[in-house]
Amino acid sequence: MSIEVDVTIKLKHGVADPEGENTKKALNLLGFKRVRGVKSMKTFRIEIEPEKADGEEEEEVKKEVEEMCRKLLANPVIHEYEIQVVKSERR
Amino acid sequence: MSIEVDVTIKLKHGVADPEGENTKKALNLLGFKRVRGVKSMKTFRIEIEPEKADGEEEEEVKKEVEEMCRKLLANPVIHEYEIQVVKSERR
Repeated sequence: MSIEVDVTIKLKHGVADPEGENTKKALNLLGFKRVRGVKSMKTFRIEIEPEKADGEEEEEVKKEVEEMCRKLLANPVIHEYEIQVVKSERR
Repeated sequence: MSIEVDVTIKLKHGVADPEGENTKKALNLLGFKRVRGVKSMKTFRIEIEPEKADGEEEEEVKKEVEEMCRKLLANPVIHEYEIQVVKSERR
């Protein structure tokens, strides 16, 4: 029994993304001419121990993960994040 | 008009993920005791210029992006990847 949450950390609009830009250049040089842009992002898949037996605590878990983002995972100056529960099941 | 594809590059099962492990430890130390595990992944959002007017080329685009993974984005020794078309629309 576990809950899996995907946290995607991406750069805010307007923040330079050299990794994405260089990936785009490399892809273009390799012959993928249709690539117009690449954005790099980081994803953490977090496995959380559920407290309740059923799937009713999804909202609580989302709030907890948001706190993780604020405290550790994301830098509010340059990052924005998306939280998505990908698996919430009993085994 | 553009097609956006998300490529998620993750480590194969059994490959050490020190970034994920250390993130887990840090979260536990910060008081998030319910975190059982963290896996780190990389995502590239690739914007591709469509060749056809409608959305019928999704399969073609997926194949092209798979080639990008093989040639540049992923290391087949340690990585596996997922390709997902996130947006395919006319503007």
